[in-house]
Amino acid sequence: MKAAFYSGNQTFELKSSQPEPVLPGMVRLKVAYCGVCGTDIHIYHGKMDHRVQMPQVIGHEVSAEIAELGPDVSGWQVGDKVSVRPLQPGADDPSDNGQRHIGKNLKFIGIDTPGGMQTYWNVPAYTLHRLPETMSLQLGALTEPLAVACHDVRLSRLQAGENAVIIGGGPIGVLIALVARHKGANVLISEPNATRVALCQELGLAAVNPTATDVVKEVEVFTKGAMADVVFEVSGVTAGVQTMTQLARARGRIVMVAIHSEPRPVDLFRFFWRELQLIGTRVYEPEDFDEAITLAASDELPLDQFITQISPLDAIQSVFETIDNNPAGLKYLLQCTD
Amino acid sequence: MKAAFYSGNQTFELKSSQPEPVLPGMVRLKVAYCGVCGTDIHIYHGKMDHRVQMPQVIGHEVSAEIAELGPDVSGWQVGDKVSVRPLQPGADDPSDNGQRHIGKNLKFIGIDTPGGMQTYWNVPAYTLHRLPETMSLQLGALTEPLAVACHDVRLSRLQAGENAVIIGGGPIGVLIALVARHKGANVLISEPNATRVALCQELGLAAVNPTATDVVKEVEVFTKGAMADVVFEVSGVTAGVQTMTQLARARGRIVMVAIHSEPRPVDLFRFFWRELQLIGTRVYEPEDFDEAITLAASDELPLDQFITQISPLDAIQSVFETIDNNPAGLKYLLQCTD
Repeated sequence: MKAAFYSGNQTFELKSSQPEPVLPGMVRLKVAYCGVCGTDIHIYHGKMDHRVQMPQVIGHEVSAEIAELGPDVSGWQVGDKVSVRPLQPGADDPSDNGQRHIGKNLKFIGIDTPGGMQTYWNVPAYTLHRLPETMSLQLGALTEPLAVACHDVRLSRLQAGENAVIIGGGPIGVLIALVARHKGANVLISEPNATRVALCQELGLAAVNPTATDVVKEVEVFTKGAMADVVFEVSGVTAGVQTMTQLARARGRIVMVAIHSEPRPVDLFRFFWRELQLIGTRVYEPEDFDEAITLAASDELPLDQFITQISPLDAIQSVFETIDNNPAGLKYLLQCTD
Repeated sequence: MKAAFYSGNQTFELKSSQPEPVLPGMVRLKVAYCGVCGTDIHIYHGKMDHRVQMPQVIGHEVSAEIAELGPDVSGWQVGDKVSVRPLQPGADDPSDNGQRHIGKNLKFIGIDTPGGMQTYWNVPAYTLHRLPETMSLQLGALTEPLAVACHDVRLSRLQAGENAVIIGGGPIGVLIALVARHKGANVLISEPNATRVALCQELGLAAVNPTATDVVKEVEVFTKGAMADVVFEVSGVTAGVQTMTQLARARGRIVMVAIHSEPRPVDLFRFFWRELQLIGTRVYEPEDFDEAITLAASDELPLDQFITQISPLDAIQSVFETIDNNPAGLKYLLQCTD
């Protein structure tokens, strides 16, 4: 089998190795595809070296077939097609309030423990979600980021007919837009990269460029003055935070999807004045994965267009370099089968 | 009749004048007491001179008796005891989403229009809330700030048995604490002024001084590690904003009560990481006034202890100077009856 090890300094090393033994409660997966997440790019840039135990296989957007069942695993069979919800809850902390998906002692599989950019990957059976037999495994690899979008939209309490503005048209922003549109919302994306704006428009999504136009006025026109019921901040930059409070209607909900690496100046007066709400959202719960798989299987989202490129695992180094040089792409998949 | 006019430069002028005619839909109130709000202190400091049309009577925490009914007013009688919900909604704006109490064209009576620091005060009949015959008019003057607290607690979705931390033990912070405790919450106040800490403790409220102790650790101990279900940020200062995100449990709610005059650095990562929620709250809706009056009438809150001083309207200048020099006090009332 092959495995791609991140070894620091923006470098991956491909190694041949033997599959590890399958421990009780675990399954060995034969990985089909592993998508490259923004978090993987952060790891590649060395920004998460404090969490990654180098050299380490990373990756967590996986579709796979079950290759072997460990002891004490039931409900699954060799050959089952699956995706992986890469969360390994730790001991409960009182301050978790039962929210195990964001628990204090949670480990994220593929960051804190080895990930899926390898031929065979052992994961706890409880992380598996069954993919329909008829679903392509390329599509199956999109269910993890799609589950993020389903979680964000669910926690936003978005209703059909509402106006939703997404600040940031990267992969997660576009998936949120697609899920929100599927729920009946009127969706507008704000994205400064012209190529991505064009990509959004190819997907049938309204998109504006905040560096070329006044987004507040665009949202006024788009919503006939009603402004956004829901704003998703997915940009992760200060400008997005400055804009988000200007776009929401009275009692509008702003969903904090992005990972802001440092405190940002926030217009708290506006939260008071218009009774705005900010809703932090992170990863997903099992129901979000179920919804993502159902949605992907329904063929009602243009997910095939969402895949920018599929490359063999051998090409991992150049794929990461390509993403780095081409921030306008959407989803890059690594084909991990030998 | 007497009226106290704010004329800029931290100055009030007392004048004798004639009551104005009572227009249709309006009532003339004989003002009993008018409390001094933090907003009045802001006006006194000149910070709201862009909204106040000097010379102007200010004040909006009023108890009164109806002295005269204008044309087209029904449901009220001369002599009825009332408090005033000082909101004058303007034309609906599409972005208000029906939230008239915070509408774009709302006028706040006592800031944008003349207030209650005078013997007779004409207000729209729709602003009136009936006070029980048995309620003292001193207590009646507290229903407006108490309605603010009821609104804040209602929008926080606080449940009995939850842990609530209030950052800032001024008048509104203390009222929020009293309402939250009445709803069955475990309440802790964080307040840097030692005199106010002692006042809170006299009211039976647990209070800590964040300049003398580590509030995060205090909250850990107070909640047995569960941390706060709800945090009320009432301090209005950067330190409060820095603390608020550290005190909340996973999916904890942070209520933005304070008026932050400029953008503050906010730990948005923590909103993401622990799925925190921020809930902006402003003024009140009619049901909050109803609840405040019921609560005040129930005698279940130690509201008498909440009144620091009662002074005649003639003393308005020295009352404002006293508040300025004594930030440890709670509520100062002006007796407005001739």
